[in-house]
Amino acid sequence: MEIGMIGLGRMGANIVRRLMRYGHSCVVYNRTPDKVAQLEAEGAIGAASLDDLVQKLTPPRIIWVMVPAGEVTEQVIGKLADKLERDDIIIDGGNSYYKDDVRRSQALQKQGIHYVDIGTSGGVWGLDRGYCLMIGGPQEAVEQLDPILKSVAPGKGEIETTPGREQLKGTAEEGYLHCGPVGAGHFVKMVHNGVEYALMQAYAEGFDIFRSANSEELPADHQYTLNVADIAEVWRRGSVVGSWLLDLTAIALAEDPALSGYSGHVQDSGEGRWTLMAAIESAVPADVLSAALYTRFRSRQEHTFAEKVLSAMRYQFGGHVEK
Amino acid sequence: MEIGMIGLGRMGANIVRRLMRYGHSCVVYNRTPDKVAQLEAEGAIGAASLDDLVQKLTPPRIIWVMVPAGEVTEQVIGKLADKLERDDIIIDGGNSYYKDDVRRSQALQKQGIHYVDIGTSGGVWGLDRGYCLMIGGPQEAVEQLDPILKSVAPGKGEIETTPGREQLKGTAEEGYLHCGPVGAGHFVKMVHNGVEYALMQAYAEGFDIFRSANSEELPADHQYTLNVADIAEVWRRGSVVGSWLLDLTAIALAEDPALSGYSGHVQDSGEGRWTLMAAIESAVPADVLSAALYTRFRSRQEHTFAEKVLSAMRYQFGGHVEK
Amino acid sequence: MEIGMIGLGRMGANIVRRLMRYGHSCVVYNRTPDKVAQLEAEGAIGAASLDDLVQKLTPPRIIWVMVPAGEVTEQVIGKLADKLERDDIIIDGGNSYYKDDVRRSQALQKQGIHYVDIGTSGGVWGLDRGYCLMIGGPQEAVEQLDPILKSVAPGKGEIETTPGREQLKGTAEEGYLHCGPVGAGHFVKMVHNGVEYALMQAYAEGFDIFRSANSEELPADHQYTLNVADIAEVWRRGSVVGSWLLDLTAIALAEDPALSGYSGHVQDSGEGRWTLMAAIESAVPADVLSAALYTRFRSRQEHTFAEKVLSAMRYQFGGHVEK
Amino acid sequence: MEIGMIGLGRMGANIVRRLMRYGHSCVVYNRTPDKVAQLEAEGAIGAASLDDLVQKLTPPRIIWVMVPAGEVTEQVIGKLADKLERDDIIIDGGNSYYKDDVRRSQALQKQGIHYVDIGTSGGVWGLDRGYCLMIGGPQEAVEQLDPILKSVAPGKGEIETTPGREQLKGTAEEGYLHCGPVGAGHFVKMVHNGVEYALMQAYAEGFDIFRSANSEELPADHQYTLNVADIAEVWRRGSVVGSWLLDLTAIALAEDPALSGYSGHVQDSGEGRWTLMAAIESAVPADVLSAALYTRFRSRQEHTFAEKVLSAMRYQFGGHVEK
Repeated sequence: MEIGMIGLGRMGANIVRRLMRYGHSCVVYNRTPDKVAQLEAEGAIGAASLDDLVQKLTPPRIIWVMVPAGEVTEQVIGKLADKLERDDIIIDGGNSYYKDDVRRSQALQKQGIHYVDIGTSGGVWGLDRGYCLMIGGPQEAVEQLDPILKSVAPGKGEIETTPGREQLKGTAEEGYLHCGPVGAGHFVKMVHNGVEYALMQAYAEGFDIFRSANSEELPADHQYTLNVADIAEVWRRGSVVGSWLLDLTAIALAEDPALSGYSGHVQDSGEGRWTLMAAIESAVPADVLSAALYTRFRSRQEHTFAEKVLSAMRYQFGGHVEK
Repeated sequence: MEIGMIGLGRMGANIVRRLMRYGHSCVVYNRTPDKVAQLEAEGAIGAASLDDLVQKLTPPRIIWVMVPAGEVTEQVIGKLADKLERDDIIIDGGNSYYKDDVRRSQALQKQGIHYVDIGTSGGVWGLDRGYCLMIGGPQEAVEQLDPILKSVAPGKGEIETTPGREQLKGTAEEGYLHCGPVGAGHFVKMVHNGVEYALMQAYAEGFDIFRSANSEELPADHQYTLNVADIAEVWRRGSVVGSWLLDLTAIALAEDPALSGYSGHVQDSGEGRWTLMAAIESAVPADVLSAALYTRFRSRQEHTFAEKVLSAMRYQFGGHVEK
Repeated sequence: MEIGMIGLGRMGANIVRRLMRYGHSCVVYNRTPDKVAQLEAEGAIGAASLDDLVQKLTPPRIIWVMVPAGEVTEQVIGKLADKLERDDIIIDGGNSYYKDDVRRSQALQKQGIHYVDIGTSGGVWGLDRGYCLMIGGPQEAVEQLDPILKSVAPGKGEIETTPGREQLKGTAEEGYLHCGPVGAGHFVKMVHNGVEYALMQAYAEGFDIFRSANSEELPADHQYTLNVADIAEVWRRGSVVGSWLLDLTAIALAEDPALSGYSGHVQDSGEGRWTLMAAIESAVPADVLSAALYTRFRSRQEHTFAEKVLSAMRYQFGGHVEK
Repeated sequence: MEIGMIGLGRMGANIVRRLMRYGHSCVVYNRTPDKVAQLEAEGAIGAASLDDLVQKLTPPRIIWVMVPAGEVTEQVIGKLADKLERDDIIIDGGNSYYKDDVRRSQALQKQGIHYVDIGTSGGVWGLDRGYCLMIGGPQEAVEQLDPILKSVAPGKGEIETTPGREQLKGTAEEGYLHCGPVGAGHFVKMVHNGVEYALMQAYAEGFDIFRSANSEELPADHQYTLNVADIAEVWRRGSVVGSWLLDLTAIALAEDPALSGYSGHVQDSGEGRWTLMAAIESAVPADVLSAALYTRFRSRQEHTFAEKVLSAMRYQFGGHVEK
């Protein structure tokens, strides 16, 4: 099929590459032209502007927007709306807030333009492994995109079939899923990231306990100096806690068990935050998802004001001066 | 090699079966004789009593104790200590507290009996997949056990090699690991279970948000009725959150997306609790591990006294009567 | 001064009573007329409709709206806007979301109507103790309201002066505070309630530990049967944890230490939720505020879907069937 | 009455002073003699050694030990045990672990020496306000101490009587309480401190949200620059969140709203940790108590190893390099 891609960052460029591997024709545009040139060299059709990209695509067009969520996405889609025609499809493949999807889709619907939101997971490994796709939007538009989605997704691969799957239809086993109406794709991807933070935090706390197991605060015969790289490795085989995140942890710890090259400043993106807001709005207790996010907030500060308030109270009632 | 097994519950019996598959000779004992008879039928040598088991083994003996942690393990090892000789090895393969290992080992050491603690993970799948083994104890004794450990463990299998592993020696890649001196095996297994609880909780909260996404508390155009079975399935392919626990979740949800056959009462074993105690003793923040455990505590009560205290305060200051 | 009050629920009616005690003239309106009649009997001027209330007030008018936050407040203020004139002041004294204040104020500003948001705390005790007032809005309007605010607030009372207060100006010591521009009053009140939830939860967990201290899970010589009413009482004198919430807890426990008349279903209002959203938006770790809210969410369900997911995983990997 | 005091730190010395105010005769000992001299100057009888102290007291003796919990207390009580006689009473007034009380009491009981554990709260303010006393031990011994306890405790003071208290007997209203058998006093004090940490954390998070309310991450019309000193002050009057800890916060913020003199390193003592262990042992969800303790653990580190693990995973799957 023919598809336009706007935004050639790591994710956008690799999705184009993967699409070309499967024989799709890609018209590509990026704010900085060097990335366009690079993909032209690999077989894509370059576009010099949004207008150029629109003109080079045959209607009804399919345009995948893969730019930073928030204002940039808002602007690009706003500009596209003026250039597109009835029955064209805009895919927002970034990490947009699902409420923005709903709002934008309602506006575009008036022009007969279809809006499809796709959450993608796969990171730097996606080019070869394929990307897990979580999709929201109108049934017809999503069906039309099927050949593209199938190519970007990982497919069944060598992963064992889930018992009981035979009776269930659908594409989930292929690694892509139409989750529901507009916004549903980003909603599912949002929670995916919330869960991801908490999974990461679970391992992180466990390895922190291991690193601290030789603390001198502990009685001598309860102190252990543990090899965290080996522990991560042994857990990869036969244990209940095996996962892809554990595989990655094993790689990092095999390089340097002290992880001394990593600062410990941990960023968070909107999805982790929005996941909590969604939990709060529907009154779901989300204890570990919250704790995982707050750890990241805390990691980026030298001291919180909260901690100073604690110090101040301790001084006031007990005369304690913290060092 | 020759090995004695005391305790033929699900784990003990399957470890015997796996050992026999690899050609080891197993003398087996259980409090109830029917399980002994069953394994005799499969090729093991049955023992009618602890004494009988000890006599049927050639010194220096290797005896794997696989009975419930706590008092039962304490008693069995106590009785064994009277019957064994210098250089015999007792393996505690249950879920013992590492501080009990240290204490018991110090007593046995005086008699020249070696004590090895092994934490095992693998559940009902271990017979075929092999068991991940986390081992503590004196170097020599653990080395002596190597052929047995290698057979029980999963081996490298088809799991991809961790980059950088080549330079690192050891058995971690085979699925078994000598973690350190006595207690270290159960210490690592303990934290393993603490991490396991939190990983489970992370997925559980995510799916709870999905199930609640069609809550009528939400604005109509932000309500989603999601197919949780399909979401679990699609995440198994190419996504960052893929794991064995997710595979199991996908199986359960494929059977019944409402999970109506499950009560939601969730037990916890000692390890989750001891993990927190270890974290507290070495001053490691363990937010998600704690939250995961507390959810289980809460799940087994209709209402906590804490909640009644909240209701009572609300009534006192606001006149609120909760329904 | 002359003031109109719309909404004669517990809070609205008692504020009117308090204002009348201090000699203010109150024109009152309520959706159901019996409450109007009651306050007329106590000296207020009744109004039969919003129009009637507006007509009975001399411009520039001051109208305090004390109706349920959300749609009701939105509608009442919407209707008022059509009836009022330049320089009139609308006070939203309910528990509105501060972002709604900002939006509403911006609309009213075009008509020259001033909007002041006031968060009030004091519950059923406020009539006699006075209400703590947290105020947002334009400086001039708030200054104009000063005689009213001073009457509704508790005043200095017998509470000890904070050392260092002498140099600081302002009304905080009188129990009312102009916190900042529009929305700031409700913002401060919102966080107030978030903090309140966590304070309550702190005591609640402590008393839960006391009630569980005679659990048979514990060793016999570490079991305690504690008198929670006496503990609450003794903490009221000389201890670091003394507070008004503790006073209330002591009252409830003195009546019935088992609190058997309280269900343990605990409601939450918007403020606790919005507090977390504000924390998330400004990247502040809010661990205890979150945990306190989630406990309330959990208290209203028999079992969460999350707990069923945990049960299901446990069954899949370990064959555990929870009772 | 006559009483011996061992340990003249801030708490011990002030309790002696308070006892002397009420006419009790105090024999005092301290490891460093200058503190003894100081209290002699104020009217106490100095002792040059433990032996001297024991000799200067008339049997049956009452000796209050007020030294650091843990090894120091263990040693002092061990030495005393050799010097005392049947029917003497040892009071451990420090912050001992209740399980140590139980163990020590069982040993002393064989000699007929009574052991009473007293948890005290009151900080630097206790000399004038009196100390809240939580007491464990045998009924007879505690009754014997009544005149002393009454003097150290705050008494009813001007604090309002709890409705319903009239029917309940006992000393709780006087600010001291015999909580139960040995250990019960320190158990109640332990949880008291656990609750105290969480109350402090609740306020701390609230004020952190206020300080961050002018964050540039927020939309311009939702940014507030708030006066935290004034907010603490206004909450002291009429609000639901009033407390002694809030009074102290108001003092600190009145001095410097930025709290720039406080480092934000926050210590924790054993009690907060033991409270969690008690909660875990009796399966009580203790979410806010835990979060409060973990915040303190975190406050004393530049970065946790956990955070580095998170950074490392992010790098591995997404190529993210944290600054």
